[in-house]
Amino acid sequence: MSLDAIGLFLEATTLKRIPRMGWAMRGVPHVESVAEHSHAMTIVALALADLLNASGTLTIPLNLEKVLTIATLHDLAEARLTDLPASAQRLIPDAIKSQAEETAIRDLLGPLPSAKRLVGWWHEFEDESTPEGRLVRDADKLEMMVQCLRYEQAGVRSLDEFWSAMGRHSWHYSISADMYARLKALRTS
Amino acid sequence: MSLDAIGLFLEATTLKRIPRMGWAMRGVPHVESVAEHSHAMTIVALALADLLNASGTLTIPLNLEKVLTIATLHDLAEARLTDLPASAQRLIPDAIKSQAEETAIRDLLGPLPSAKRLVGWWHEFEDESTPEGRLVRDADKLEMMVQCLRYEQAGVRSLDEFWSAMGRHSWHYSISADMYARLKALRTS
Amino acid sequence: MSLDAIGLFLEATTLKRIPRMGWAMRGVPHVESVAEHSHAMTIVALALADLLNASGTLTIPLNLEKVLTIATLHDLAEARLTDLPASAQRLIPDAIKSQAEETAIRDLLGPLPSAKRLVGWWHEFEDESTPEGRLVRDADKLEMMVQCLRYEQAGVRSLDEFWSAMGRHSWHYSISADMYARLKALRTS
Amino acid sequence: MSLDAIGLFLEATTLKRIPRMGWAMRGVPHVESVAEHSHAMTIVALALADLLNASGTLTIPLNLEKVLTIATLHDLAEARLTDLPASAQRLIPDAIKSQAEETAIRDLLGPLPSAKRLVGWWHEFEDESTPEGRLVRDADKLEMMVQCLRYEQAGVRSLDEFWSAMGRHSWHYSISADMYARLKALRTS
Amino acid sequence: MSLDAIGLFLEATTLKRIPRMGWAMRGVPHVESVAEHSHAMTIVALALADLLNASGTLTIPLNLEKVLTIATLHDLAEARLTDLPASAQRLIPDAIKSQAEETAIRDLLGPLPSAKRLVGWWHEFEDESTPEGRLVRDADKLEMMVQCLRYEQAGVRSLDEFWSAMGRHSWHYSISADMYARLKALRTS
Amino acid sequence: MSLDAIGLFLEATTLKRIPRMGWAMRGVPHVESVAEHSHAMTIVALALADLLNASGTLTIPLNLEKVLTIATLHDLAEARLTDLPASAQRLIPDAIKSQAEETAIRDLLGPLPSAKRLVGWWHEFEDESTPEGRLVRDADKLEMMVQCLRYEQAGVRSLDEFWSAMGRHSWHYSISADMYARLKALRTS
Repeated sequence: MSLDAIGLFLEATTLKRIPRMGWAMRGVPHVESVAEHSHAMTIVALALADLLNASGTLTIPLNLEKVLTIATLHDLAEARLTDLPASAQRLIPDAIKSQAEETAIRDLLGPLPSAKRLVGWWHEFEDESTPEGRLVRDADKLEMMVQCLRYEQAGVRSLDEFWSAMGRHSWHYSISADMYARLKALRTS
Repeated sequence: MSLDAIGLFLEATTLKRIPRMGWAMRGVPHVESVAEHSHAMTIVALALADLLNASGTLTIPLNLEKVLTIATLHDLAEARLTDLPASAQRLIPDAIKSQAEETAIRDLLGPLPSAKRLVGWWHEFEDESTPEGRLVRDADKLEMMVQCLRYEQAGVRSLDEFWSAMGRHSWHYSISADMYARLKALRTS
Repeated sequence: MSLDAIGLFLEATTLKRIPRMGWAMRGVPHVESVAEHSHAMTIVALALADLLNASGTLTIPLNLEKVLTIATLHDLAEARLTDLPASAQRLIPDAIKSQAEETAIRDLLGPLPSAKRLVGWWHEFEDESTPEGRLVRDADKLEMMVQCLRYEQAGVRSLDEFWSAMGRHSWHYSISADMYARLKALRTS
Repeated sequence: MSLDAIGLFLEATTLKRIPRMGWAMRGVPHVESVAEHSHAMTIVALALADLLNASGTLTIPLNLEKVLTIATLHDLAEARLTDLPASAQRLIPDAIKSQAEETAIRDLLGPLPSAKRLVGWWHEFEDESTPEGRLVRDADKLEMMVQCLRYEQAGVRSLDEFWSAMGRHSWHYSISADMYARLKALRTS
Repeated sequence: MSLDAIGLFLEATTLKRIPRMGWAMRGVPHVESVAEHSHAMTIVALALADLLNASGTLTIPLNLEKVLTIATLHDLAEARLTDLPASAQRLIPDAIKSQAEETAIRDLLGPLPSAKRLVGWWHEFEDESTPEGRLVRDADKLEMMVQCLRYEQAGVRSLDEFWSAMGRHSWHYSISADMYARLKALRTS
Repeated sequence: MSLDAIGLFLEATTLKRIPRMGWAMRGVPHVESVAEHSHAMTIVALALADLLNASGTLTIPLNLEKVLTIATLHDLAEARLTDLPASAQRLIPDAIKSQAEETAIRDLLGPLPSAKRLVGWWHEFEDESTPEGRLVRDADKLEMMVQCLRYEQAGVRSLDEFWSAMGRHSWHYSISADMYARLKALRTS
């Protein structure tokens, strides 16, 4: 019955209270929530997809409905699992974490008619298996670095390792790499 | 040039720091940000639209790309204007506020190839002029009441006027009214 | 009837929950409220006026009752309007904002016998039309820069534009300019 | 030399970071600062004095400059001493606390030409020795109860003892008692 | 080399920034950290052990050094793993979580001469295999309910399920059950 | 009667809400609580004592039960007195503060069978009169500087005076001095 979606709505608001733990553990004083990251990241994904579709470089344009849906839902499982920082991910096997996320997201989206399709799209993000899934992956990293820059602009100093780690990162789209390069340039200006 | 979208990304993160002032002014201790509201509201819009499209009651299905885009961007102007609570809106003429929002959103989305289309979609929300714009309107109110219920469940007691005001509210879609009725039932259970 | 002042008291406490948005939007982690600014600013105004009156440079001494009253009430309208940062003020015409503030302050102070006189004094601040109004203007800016320095001393780094903007500022009293010069010297020491 | 007042300005902003400890110790989630209390209390004092002066019940009208000055400065010593809650005041002899406050306030106001007069006025509050000192005493208690009511309206439930203690309180002015009676009526409405 | 303990010190302070997620997810506005829980819980463990050793009911007195050490270190692994709430624990197999904790604690305590013994003591808590391990288990639950009561006394209303769950809880020591009964009586008084 | 310990438990949780005021007054945005300091400090004390006992440099090993008890309880009096920063301690005579703390701790621990012994141990810390009391003194300072470093690593810039003050500090144990030297080296690296 459709009204069960109320349960999803209530749990969606829980994401407002899940802090992005990596920032907190490095002493960032005012830590964004998972919901805040997800929103800004959806805007980044929307912009990247719009630019790519307009660029003439893709043979098949990105499905924007899919891009926006994946971006909006990509961290929904954290309403139950919370945000596991890198130090926790090193302690919990990837397969266990993925399985936990899938169980959570499948259960949360269950009341929706398109639940099966939505979980499938989430897998495209998780597995980086489609152009849209890969685009949102890029947006996820790029938004993290935008926030990282903003924290640094506001005075936070313990975030060098984020930039170092990006030195080893492979972007799926060159526009993401270009955007990141510009962001990095702002850092040192 | 596409890289100007960096400016949009930086300002999008500003929404993480804009509190929803209506809650703060009523003494709510932990106040959600505009970004947090926007994210949860996008999930509500996605769910309502999915339920409606599956319901067989619409002659033309809702355009989900448009729904998700409007939901994600509906409060973007607040990155510059901040969140004006009801007491402020009573002091500033509607036309002035609308004009300010449009100027802001037009400027923020300017670097995107589809800027014009996106601003147009935002107008559909503002003017409640299309099925998608009206659906997101419903989602905006419904998410506000979901958060209201969660604050009350956590002990906040100064929010009666929100429920009273809803007694006079006209929903665009009956599913929104049904969801709200269920939410209200949870309140008194 | 005098007991209506209770309404004023309740709304005065609302200023404790209105953040000074300019700081928040630049990523300052712990943002002062309008009430906090107003209190520190009243102390600055009191000190500046005391120093001026003792300096022998004024033909007519400043009316300290008026100075303290204006300082205490100068942002009272924000209990309804909230604090509009520069980015919002660029979007809302000055005349609209002034009118909104006057409507709010007139309504809030209404229950007091001296309401009319108090609103008049607020106008002296708004219009910079009397020595006392101008003195509080100086105090308003000076306190903002004192807080700016304290944020920077605590590590915030995104506030350069505040100091740049002051380079173009005209102080009404030379003592304010002198104080600011000393403050700026502390910044670079 | 007058520019030493910069030290006072810097320490005045410290009051923005001193929490009113009594609330914190009872679990109030969002605790006001001493600066926030001082600002709202100055508005209460201004209103009470204005009402009294207009009431025709005083043979000599209250000196409003003095009322506003005392209200603004009454907790200034807490910039060094912090806010000692009742449980701490029971452990530290009154005379020691008074002496500490006087030393602090004398030192903080030292750079002002009127320092001696201002410290004297503070004593009028501390000793309840003049009409103005007593009026600000009433405002201090009344503002505390206004904030108490607002916390309760927002859901806080651990503040009964504040209302009980007021049952034993003697107000200096009947208008304060009347205002408090009205406030209490709002509580139970 | 002993100075490696600096690494432990730095990570121990990380526990100040790990929120107890169960509270946050239920909307508690001001959420305690793992460090705060650990400190209060160590005091509870110290008191319970002192009362038990003085009660004459134990044939062998509890080893207080062991009790205090276990209490202080029982959540140390969360400096890397963060606090996984019940909803997350249902998604991650117990054995995986236990293994992750042991790996973390072994690594964190590695620089200490007694590392092996300390990890062994932590196991006594984890496995409830010794009188001291069981006593600290009781203290862990009891402190959680003390904090739960304090949140409720301050107005939080979403915590019924904590009390319900305790109805099915088996305490290791009757004094813990007695203390809990008294705590519960305070709740309804 | 043993169940009176519930009072101690309730007040122990109050330490979660007492901020370490020295940080707040210097503008640190996210300030640790006394409970958080006490927990991290107990880990530092445990580590220092373990290292010392293993070092072969002590003729009589440190009593670890005593070390852990003193560390856990050393700031318990602040549940009533709050944390008095240096600026407050300069205004209140040492003997008054010590007496206030002893009265508080004696009252708080009163319900425990070993109250007298525990208060005595607290005196060993206060008076630096035994090896264990002195060790915890070192741990208290060392933890403060560990937190200071973490604040600086996160961007706080107003803490130089903490490091300067340490230049005049005499450590009781050379291992503490060595640890501090290493910490200081991390600061400048």
